[in-house]
Amino acid sequence: MTKWVYLFREGNAEMRDLLGGKGAGLAEMVRAGLPVPPGFTITTQACNAYFANNKRFPEGMWDQTLEALREVERETGKRFGDPANPLLVSVRSGAKFSMPGMMDTVLNLGLNDRTVEGLARLTNNERFAYDAYRRFVAMFGRIVKGIDGEKFEEILRSYKEKTEGKQDTDLTADMLKQIVADFKALYQRELGEPFPEDPYEQLRAAVAAVFDSWMGKRAVDYRNFHKIPHDLCTAVNIMTMVFGNMGYDSGTGVAFTRDPSTGEKVLYGEYLPNAQGEDVVAGIRTPKRIAQLAQEMPEVYKQFEEIAQRLERHYREMQDLEFTVERGKLWMLQTRRGQRTAAAAVKIAVDMVHEGLITKEEAVQRVEPAQVYQLLLPRFDERDKQRAADEGALLGRGLNASPGAASGMAVFDADTAQALGREGKAVILVRPETSPDDVHGMLEARGILTQHGGATSHAAVVARGLGKPCVAGAEAIRVGVKQFTANGVVVREGDLISIDGTTGEIFRGPIKTVVPEFKKEVQLQELLSWADEFRRLQVWANADYPRDAKVAREMGAQGIGLARTEHMFFEEDRLPIVQRMILAETDEERQQALDELLPIQRGDFEGLFREMDGLPVIIRLIDPPLHEFLPSYDELVQEIADLRVEMSAAKTAEERAEKEEAIRQKENLLGSVAAMREANPMLGLRGCRLGILFPQITVMQVRAIFEAACNVAAEGVKVYPEVMIPLVGHINELRRQREQLEPVARQVMAERGVQISYKFGTMIEVPRAALTADEIAQDAQFFSFGTNDLTQMTFGISRDDAEGKFLLKYVEWKILPDNPFQVLDRGGVGKLMKMAVELGRKTRPDLEVGICGEHGGDPSSIHFCHSIGLNYVSASPYRVPVARLAAAQAALGETQRDR
Amino acid sequence: MTKWVYLFREGNAEMRDLLGGKGAGLAEMVRAGLPVPPGFTITTQACNAYFANNKRFPEGMWDQTLEALREVERETGKRFGDPANPLLVSVRSGAKFSMPGMMDTVLNLGLNDRTVEGLARLTNNERFAYDAYRRFVAMFGRIVKGIDGEKFEEILRSYKEKTEGKQDTDLTADMLKQIVADFKALYQRELGEPFPEDPYEQLRAAVAAVFDSWMGKRAVDYRNFHKIPHDLCTAVNIMTMVFGNMGYDSGTGVAFTRDPSTGEKVLYGEYLPNAQGEDVVAGIRTPKRIAQLAQEMPEVYKQFEEIAQRLERHYREMQDLEFTVERGKLWMLQTRRGQRTAAAAVKIAVDMVHEGLITKEEAVQRVEPAQVYQLLLPRFDERDKQRAADEGALLGRGLNASPGAASGMAVFDADTAQALGREGKAVILVRPETSPDDVHGMLEARGILTQHGGATSHAAVVARGLGKPCVAGAEAIRVGVKQFTANGVVVREGDLISIDGTTGEIFRGPIKTVVPEFKKEVQLQELLSWADEFRRLQVWANADYPRDAKVAREMGAQGIGLARTEHMFFEEDRLPIVQRMILAETDEERQQALDELLPIQRGDFEGLFREMDGLPVIIRLIDPPLHEFLPSYDELVQEIADLRVEMSAAKTAEERAEKEEAIRQKENLLGSVAAMREANPMLGLRGCRLGILFPQITVMQVRAIFEAACNVAAEGVKVYPEVMIPLVGHINELRRQREQLEPVARQVMAERGVQISYKFGTMIEVPRAALTADEIAQDAQFFSFGTNDLTQMTFGISRDDAEGKFLLKYVEWKILPDNPFQVLDRGGVGKLMKMAVELGRKTRPDLEVGICGEHGGDPSSIHFCHSIGLNYVSASPYRVPVARLAAAQAALGETQRDR
Repeated sequence: MTKWVYLFREGNAEMRDLLGGKGAGLAEMVRAGLPVPPGFTITTQACNAYFANNKRFPEGMWDQTLEALREVERETGKRFGDPANPLLVSVRSGAKFSMPGMMDTVLNLGLNDRTVEGLARLTNNERFAYDAYRRFVAMFGRIVKGIDGEKFEEILRSYKEKTEGKQDTDLTADMLKQIVADFKALYQRELGEPFPEDPYEQLRAAVAAVFDSWMGKRAVDYRNFHKIPHDLCTAVNIMTMVFGNMGYDSGTGVAFTRDPSTGEKVLYGEYLPNAQGEDVVAGIRTPKRIAQLAQEMPEVYKQFEEIAQRLERHYREMQDLEFTVERGKLWMLQTRRGQRTAAAAVKIAVDMVHEGLITKEEAVQRVEPAQVYQLLLPRFDERDKQRAADEGALLGRGLNASPGAASGMAVFDADTAQALGREGKAVILVRPETSPDDVHGMLEARGILTQHGGATSHAAVVARGLGKPCVAGAEAIRVGVKQFTANGVVVREGDLISIDGTTGEIFRGPIKTVVPEFKKEVQLQELLSWADEFRRLQVWANADYPRDAKVAREMGAQGIGLARTEHMFFEEDRLPIVQRMILAETDEERQQALDELLPIQRGDFEGLFREMDGLPVIIRLIDPPLHEFLPSYDELVQEIADLRVEMSAAKTAEERAEKEEAIRQKENLLGSVAAMREANPMLGLRGCRLGILFPQITVMQVRAIFEAACNVAAEGVKVYPEVMIPLVGHINELRRQREQLEPVARQVMAERGVQISYKFGTMIEVPRAALTADEIAQDAQFFSFGTNDLTQMTFGISRDDAEGKFLLKYVEWKILPDNPFQVLDRGGVGKLMKMAVELGRKTRPDLEVGICGEHGGDPSSIHFCHSIGLNYVSASPYRVPVARLAAAQAALGETQRDR
Repeated sequence: MTKWVYLFREGNAEMRDLLGGKGAGLAEMVRAGLPVPPGFTITTQACNAYFANNKRFPEGMWDQTLEALREVERETGKRFGDPANPLLVSVRSGAKFSMPGMMDTVLNLGLNDRTVEGLARLTNNERFAYDAYRRFVAMFGRIVKGIDGEKFEEILRSYKEKTEGKQDTDLTADMLKQIVADFKALYQRELGEPFPEDPYEQLRAAVAAVFDSWMGKRAVDYRNFHKIPHDLCTAVNIMTMVFGNMGYDSGTGVAFTRDPSTGEKVLYGEYLPNAQGEDVVAGIRTPKRIAQLAQEMPEVYKQFEEIAQRLERHYREMQDLEFTVERGKLWMLQTRRGQRTAAAAVKIAVDMVHEGLITKEEAVQRVEPAQVYQLLLPRFDERDKQRAADEGALLGRGLNASPGAASGMAVFDADTAQALGREGKAVILVRPETSPDDVHGMLEARGILTQHGGATSHAAVVARGLGKPCVAGAEAIRVGVKQFTANGVVVREGDLISIDGTTGEIFRGPIKTVVPEFKKEVQLQELLSWADEFRRLQVWANADYPRDAKVAREMGAQGIGLARTEHMFFEEDRLPIVQRMILAETDEERQQALDELLPIQRGDFEGLFREMDGLPVIIRLIDPPLHEFLPSYDELVQEIADLRVEMSAAKTAEERAEKEEAIRQKENLLGSVAAMREANPMLGLRGCRLGILFPQITVMQVRAIFEAACNVAAEGVKVYPEVMIPLVGHINELRRQREQLEPVARQVMAERGVQISYKFGTMIEVPRAALTADEIAQDAQFFSFGTNDLTQMTFGISRDDAEGKFLLKYVEWKILPDNPFQVLDRGGVGKLMKMAVELGRKTRPDLEVGICGEHGGDPSSIHFCHSIGLNYVSASPYRVPVARLAAAQAALGETQRDR
């Protein structure tokens, strides 16, 4: 017979799979001899069997439950349903991972019209007993049976209205009796059946309700989003009730063993005297800081503090504790890993290493890479945020869709947001939801708040792309015309609000923001220095300018994985020369323009090389189609059309001739632009195809690279240039470029009499290059995966066209698990990458392989890059710390953190 | 010691690799006891060693050559360099495959001032001896030493001028002596060294010259084009001279064992009495038909006829023979496989099976698939072409760049070609070379002739694409302004010319063309029926309309592999409805348009199903982006701009208002078109992405398919529809469409009470689909490779943009071996296909896999499709016979034909 039920003393912390997080925590506390009310856990396996069994309890489960209940009766000396000495229990769900949307708690189960009298007699407190009873009836009705809680509240309010103080505590025992009767009548009306007096029926229904809540919509959605398997299922914890509301020698509270905001090593929490847990949650009375417990019940506080420290040491992790004091006796109700801010996560991990509590490996595994990124984003000053919270400015919470924090004027349409934003005003764009029509406003806003939409909604995706904070799907707010309401407060256009995209919080009024400086984040730096010890992947950065390279190096970059030479071409003073080069009608004209560009490019490269003294710098030769450097076809057509109208309206022959000449010039240009137009420029004349057709351009670039290298080498700079050819699909493309360009490099070095150690390699961004990587590696000393283009071609999806038109819908409809431009698609693109690495190294065992697509900064993609044996990932400079941590975690294996 | 030299009697026909085609043929004739002048072959291996050895003869080769020469001396009783009884030899190259650009022949080697006297004495014919000598000096100078042959000709002409008849035969012995002296002087002037009197030095130089010719530019280009490995190398054949010019009991000739034009079983050839081989080539005297030999030398003719038959039976193949008669004695100089026209190839293969000479398998392997295609193209009437040739209308030859034949007016620019073509005139566009600017003229021309450019030049590629005959790179013509000259003839605009793209011939004047009818090609049909016995691949056809399906079926198609539903949308009467559907502002409007399209599509499908009674029909749901059905953005912008100018020039308020209204309407439409514009439409909102976003469209299509199927099934037609989803990249796309569409199919069948056997499957045209084919096969009952798109995405090349801009250059520069849109790229695209087949069948062993890209009609690609185990190839209807043959050849293994 399967064992479906475990007494707390039969379990331990390792049994999370079977007993859930809460059950395992309680069991572990019992094993450690801590004061835990007697109880037992029905296993996740039982829940699984319940669903497999068409929602019937598996055979033996109920009998084992009754048996465990008997054992609890023996331990407590009370009996379930016994009016003389009734055993009351709480029933709680408890999955392996803490999860919103599942059934929380039913307290005081076991009460009925007869046991309530017994409770009154035993406690000598009729009011207390009926207070517990009315709470139980409401909780059972609401949580187990799904009756709208507001209906119970309404009845309660009507009684409170009759009292003087209008508080719960003002209700008399008689009123409470009457309330219980009204609640039961409501129950009967709503469900068409009487409230169950039989405690066993109550228990059976509560257990089934916990099981059912596993498949509730919110729980299922949450698991889908967080990729938690649906077959883990939940356990049910049944525990003897203890009462924090038996007078002022009683109370209930929650505490963290360290400050979850800052990570400081202090006991941090709050408690409420003479109260049950739900009163804390309901927020009707303001709880006290935990420190006050030391004054009010010094013995209890001391014992709790000891237990807290013991649990933290035992778990070697910051704990989130729940406790109740019943008539001066401390009971522990829960211990679990405490949630924390990014800053706290780093500080706690680092401190615990210094305290000898955990190893450096563990510390590195305990911080999420995304948290490192958050740490470097603007965030609210913790104290000012606390001030705002204390002042009741919290309007509600939404989904933490894009991290960072911002304060600004609420604005309700994109046009206004754009207009005010351009005036330099700080603006938060608030919309029911966003669409591509709102992007111009999002671009100018400091942050985005939406009422609807999930973590992959348009607002969320665009905001993450822009690196702006976003709170999405804040169903607590109601967006109307030029205003929104939340929690009864009306926020109008122009009112200041603050949103925290890292936590999902929305505040009224401004909150000070802090912009972190990497240099000052000493604890983060320490953590990352440990990460560096463990990781095998190097972390390089994508940087086009010396200033970016400088930042990247400060952040810990070990090289430049991608310097895009064409970005330099787009600069204002250079573009006219580039255009002359493109539009040249003779080879001499073209060469002349290139000769002008040469010293400019050389200067750019010198700057990069100096910043990266001693480290490799990969320079990619020209990549975009040439027409990108020219005015757009559409604009030219429009300009000519406008000139035509002006000409036909011209008053004088002179004016007419002038317009005519202007038209002629524009039409000439239009002709050149038209000749270069492409149906699918992404797959057109660009990358190495340009270099092959117009070798003068790449010859100039290679000359600039090697002249720059020789120049800075003469200054004593150690320079390691790597020349990268883009868009190679066939070995012969690479070979031809190599045969054209390596002689240039050798010639420059011979001219200068300097020997530079360099590499020659290629992007792998065309599927065919990956498929034939064994051939490509014959001529390439390094590969760099351009996963942006590789993803576009492998999926046959143009990112520009798709993201607005169908890709987000694909993610929303679960056709794709993620946006493949954010999280590397392992099944397709990743498979190609794996092939390419294997084939390439077969030809050239010391092949250097890295990634320079955007995925190089995404933790999950970095794991994959580690797993297929890349040498480095190259990320944008601000993602370098994220990548350092993610790379270390990949090397250390799956993180041991809870989710 | 390696054996570098083989006497003819030591070799045999199997030794082609070592002895070359000619050497092996001579050896085989000796073995068969036929009269072959004694001689020997220096092996291809020796040539290879020569190049490996820095152009020095390998050790032992020269000694073995001298030894073989001694053996020939023994056999003939003559001695090399002996004035008393001189042995003279011919030296010829001879690679495995006959190849233009290599050294042809040096005759009479061994003559010098002393041996010529011996020859005169022995033959008692001084004139003959000096004639031979002057030929030898010129040939040696020209062929071995590279002196311009025209210079020898000039000297010769100056002597002929002095004679009465002005013919070679009018030259006296004394004149010939003088000519020899003049030739030698020329030789000395040109080379700065005297003509070598030493026969051994002559031989050594000739052998080296043959070796060197292997690496001559034309030979290398030829091998590159035909993909013949460069390390095969050539053999050298050294053979005792026999003389066809020793009087009228002598002569020389060539003959085919069957008519190489028609395939008729008659001895076909020509001979020249009292002449050496080069006289036939030079074309100075007109040769006689071989039949005349029967009158003039009946014994010799009879012997030759017997030998010819014996050789054909021996080789079981039509032979191309060379012979010489020396004073009434027949000598065989060569036998090799005879080249033939497509028609002859088919007839000979079929006849030889009926004659019991070869098996059906061999017959099937002896015809090139491309020849089958040629057979179905318009071609010149053979008799009329012969007439033209006899009349000296042949102007020259170029590259046979695109098969077929055409007569028409020569026109020298694209605009005129277009104008005249549209008037219904037959036009041949003649250009120095073509560029994309000429395409509008090429579209209206019957054929294209260019002076420059190879088989992958713009003209060649476009012409093949258009299915029009093209002769390219005809360097024999000189294209000037509105005229070209060739062979001294001037052809002016409007003059009639004829080009044969199959042979590369250019004629002055018209030649009758014949348009073959497949039904009447009974021998081809017989051959293909044998092919059908052997092939494992099925051959289906791509057809969008019932009329195409009918043709395809006549050609032998076993199913429709691709019916493109959107082609039906483009028809004039339907496009407005399609546009209404696209521009609909409400769901009802859209549904209304779709309701109108439904019966039209149903009708189309009914027609297809009826034609294909009993065979499968794969219908692809809508694929192109919707904006393709709307007016182009550019045109609309232009129209609006024009209207603006018109409006500003309007005279009356009424006119103005009218223009304004027209502008408003166009601008509305422009707005819709602009919203649908895409940066890279190839990778945008098309294929299944459309079906997923706008399921109403595909729902309508599936309803039309199944209503049509039910309707024709009721007529007794056996209908096997297969629904194909385009552009799938992820299993979930396919699954979603399947879940939306299969219920529609089931519903229609339920409504009609008819059960249709159908399949549901997908294109594999996105690399990711191939990479994850194991997943895709879960929901697909069939795969169809769309190799056009698969090639575009795997290479990252947009065909529209690339072919004009860089792809042809890539092929020209050997960066790519072929245009991958014509010949399947095995290394990349093929690798993906192989993966997809293996992965797909792992999931679903009975998965039906085919190809519907253009490659399905390309023989080399069909071989590959066979090798990776496809079920069928689907080609355009006129390619079906080609595919049937290619599929059979693939099944029978590599063809045994010579090249």
